[in-house]
Amino acid sequence: MQVGLIGIGLVGTAIAERLLAADYSVVGYDIDVTAAARLAKLGGHPRESAATVVGQCDTVLLSLPTSDDILRVLAACAGAIHAGQLFIDTTTGSADDAVRAGELCESRGASYVEATILGSSELVRTAAALAMLGGDDRELTRAEAVIGCFAGKVVRVGPLSAASRMKLAVNLVLGLNRAALAEGLAFAQTIGLDPRLALEVLRAGAAYSRVMDAKGEKMLARDFSPEARLAQHHKDVRLIAAEAARCGLKLPLTEAHDRLLEAAERAGHAASDNSAVIAAYDRP
Amino acid sequence: MQVGLIGIGLVGTAIAERLLAADYSVVGYDIDVTAAARLAKLGGHPRESAATVVGQCDTVLLSLPTSDDILRVLAACAGAIHAGQLFIDTTTGSADDAVRAGELCESRGASYVEATILGSSELVRTAAALAMLGGDDRELTRAEAVIGCFAGKVVRVGPLSAASRMKLAVNLVLGLNRAALAEGLAFAQTIGLDPRLALEVLRAGAAYSRVMDAKGEKMLARDFSPEARLAQHHKDVRLIAAEAARCGLKLPLTEAHDRLLEAAERAGHAASDNSAVIAAYDRP
Repeated sequence: MQVGLIGIGLVGTAIAERLLAADYSVVGYDIDVTAAARLAKLGGHPRESAATVVGQCDTVLLSLPTSDDILRVLAACAGAIHAGQLFIDTTTGSADDAVRAGELCESRGASYVEATILGSSELVRTAAALAMLGGDDRELTRAEAVIGCFAGKVVRVGPLSAASRMKLAVNLVLGLNRAALAEGLAFAQTIGLDPRLALEVLRAGAAYSRVMDAKGEKMLARDFSPEARLAQHHKDVRLIAAEAARCGLKLPLTEAHDRLLEAAERAGHAASDNSAVIAAYDRP
Repeated sequence: MQVGLIGIGLVGTAIAERLLAADYSVVGYDIDVTAAARLAKLGGHPRESAATVVGQCDTVLLSLPTSDDILRVLAACAGAIHAGQLFIDTTTGSADDAVRAGELCESRGASYVEATILGSSELVRTAAALAMLGGDDRELTRAEAVIGCFAGKVVRVGPLSAASRMKLAVNLVLGLNRAALAEGLAFAQTIGLDPRLALEVLRAGAAYSRVMDAKGEKMLARDFSPEARLAQHHKDVRLIAAEAARCGLKLPLTEAHDRLLEAAERAGHAASDNSAVIAAYDRP
């Protein structure tokens, strides 16, 4: 069976590998011209435009940096979108954009579902990533065989936009756990403890969180080389705060976190790794 | 070999079991008279007062609710404290009290070390608890054989009072992870997501923290039956804030957490489980 793939970056490439391994024919496009050669080398079929992919495939996977990109690509390909076609969006984006993308597809007789990935390209490559599905149940059932190729675990979280909203909730907790670790390590060091021992003790007991594995050593070593950028997470935190405000819910920890990220950015860490939130605790 | 044990509550009983299994003779006292029968049934030797235990044993384990109790017991037994004697304190207490307890013992020619336990009585019973050791290195080496009977892992964290301070750092992160989970679940529910699915997704990925196993279901079910009391943790949070203020360090997340616990107490949850921090997000 043939699947279209628009966006062949780190995650897109990992998805292509999994689909090809499952004997799908992958027809792909990326704005980056080097991606075509990469896809061809893997055994896929690069095309010269997104519209060509959309015109040729009944199932199209989207793997783009933001939901702005999704809306731009769908608008540019609108003429090629056709009845019965299914779009599966793995991009992390805004809930409003997911609804807009769904409307755009529907206006051409096509369907659109969210398959937001929790996990890195490496996790996708080893089929260990989790995909959160948002959308119409019938369309999700249609989409699950393809999604199952690259996601080890799949959870249906609700109607269209639910996956984007769930990603915000996940990012809220993930970011706060990271900031809690930073605050704990800064506290330990300031009161005269060895922060390396503190990390060891934190990891050994009930206070353990998975961010300790990912960011603990980076915080201790003040190694802020980016795996993901602090300013990007700060944008998520502002989205979370806006969404909560819209619902009249107060989020005191998220508000404090927002100000910590603000301070880290002022200290020059916008493009640093998320671990740089610990810099907010440094004395000026 | 003979070991004294003052305090035979949940943790003290588990310690006694481990010591007896390792062929120590356990000579014990507890203010609660039912504890004597419990100790005798396990094969230990109850005594009629703390002073008797202190007079008869060269190594004395302390397992009391607070460091206030430690100071009170040591003062009451001061006449029985003797040269060369070693006190091993498993109680979680204040750093200042640890220093005072050390001075009191030293004034009688005895030694005092911290062996602060991270973990429940159940973990002690299965030798899976972690003990953080604070004190003079030579005394800690003397103490390690006994501590090794009931702690599966042991970390030396520094001089006397370091273990009490480390416990504060651990509680800072532990409490914030719990509050972050509460904030995330409250957010998920408020923006229309299924909070049970949110918990499932949180546990499956990078946002995972161990408090999700301990408190996730309790928060969802609004089951606030106490495993540990919210007011007790609130006291720790105020200790942490005071210690940070003394050092001129700002802890924005801990300050926000302090106010959340305040709100949960005002809502009637002082004696509830720590999971009741989620009640701070309920609409009045």
